[in-house]
Amino acid sequence: MTGNEAVSAEAELRALIEDRTRAIREKDVAAVLSVYAPDVLVYDLIDPLRHTGRESVGKRLEAWLSQFREGPIGYELRDLRLTVGGDAAFSHCLSHVDATTTEGQRIDMWWRATSCFARIDGRWMVTHEHSSVPFDMETGRASLGLKP
Amino acid sequence: MTGNEAVSAEAELRALIEDRTRAIREKDVAAVLSVYAPDVLVYDLIDPLRHTGRESVGKRLEAWLSQFREGPIGYELRDLRLTVGGDAAFSHCLSHVDATTTEGQRIDMWWRATSCFARIDGRWMVTHEHSSVPFDMETGRASLGLKP
Repeated sequence: MTGNEAVSAEAELRALIEDRTRAIREKDVAAVLSVYAPDVLVYDLIDPLRHTGRESVGKRLEAWLSQFREGPIGYELRDLRLTVGGDAAFSHCLSHVDATTTEGQRIDMWWRATSCFARIDGRWMVTHEHSSVPFDMETGRASLGLKP
Repeated sequence: MTGNEAVSAEAELRALIEDRTRAIREKDVAAVLSVYAPDVLVYDLIDPLRHTGRESVGKRLEAWLSQFREGPIGYELRDLRLTVGGDAAFSHCLSHVDATTTEGQRIDMWWRATSCFARIDGRWMVTHEHSSVPFDMETGRASLGLKP
């Protein structure tokens, strides 16, 4: 990989991440899913242990976004770090949602997100993603109220 | 990267992962830490949101391993998938511990683990790691009893 190719790969991936962030804000499920590889393996915030395949990820994303009121949601990434190799790359950040459910409950929550990318037929795709909150060892409860 | 270089990088990384698995079984904290970059950023199973730096990771690892009885612990990886680029790579798997604490409690637990690697001065190091269990949305409890 030449220096120019590395710069270009990093720019492409940052654009992909920005586009996806905007698509989540706008609840555009098709746009979000378009960057996932067909056989993506996802470790999500909630049960089960894992989701395999874009279709399963899409169902989960639909369910998550449909809990919110109409219109865009508040969603941001913080402390994003991106590492690019030849045809593999990974990023991690803290993700934050601030939005109101159809039942009027405000969800203001931070979690950890790791995204892993591979360049497949010349195009960067997400092949693996891991989202989580830690848990409190004393209570066994998920730590849903942590802030960075 | 030539085909031979890719094969060699994959072999190096698989050896690193195997060595680390054995080091965890043997509670060899120094050997585990030797593959972490000095500024590694870790999202761990339990609070807080993140650990920055090898020293912080080492303290957590010491605390985790010291809860178990003397001697090696049961520890295995399942469904490991490794993706290697030029100087970046990532792997994910399910991790399983089966061990008894000094207080006689058996810990038999599965979690999700994502490891991200960068080749720094010719040597592969873990620069990011993400370990978690999902949570149950109904109860807000961490799902500590899931099995693959």
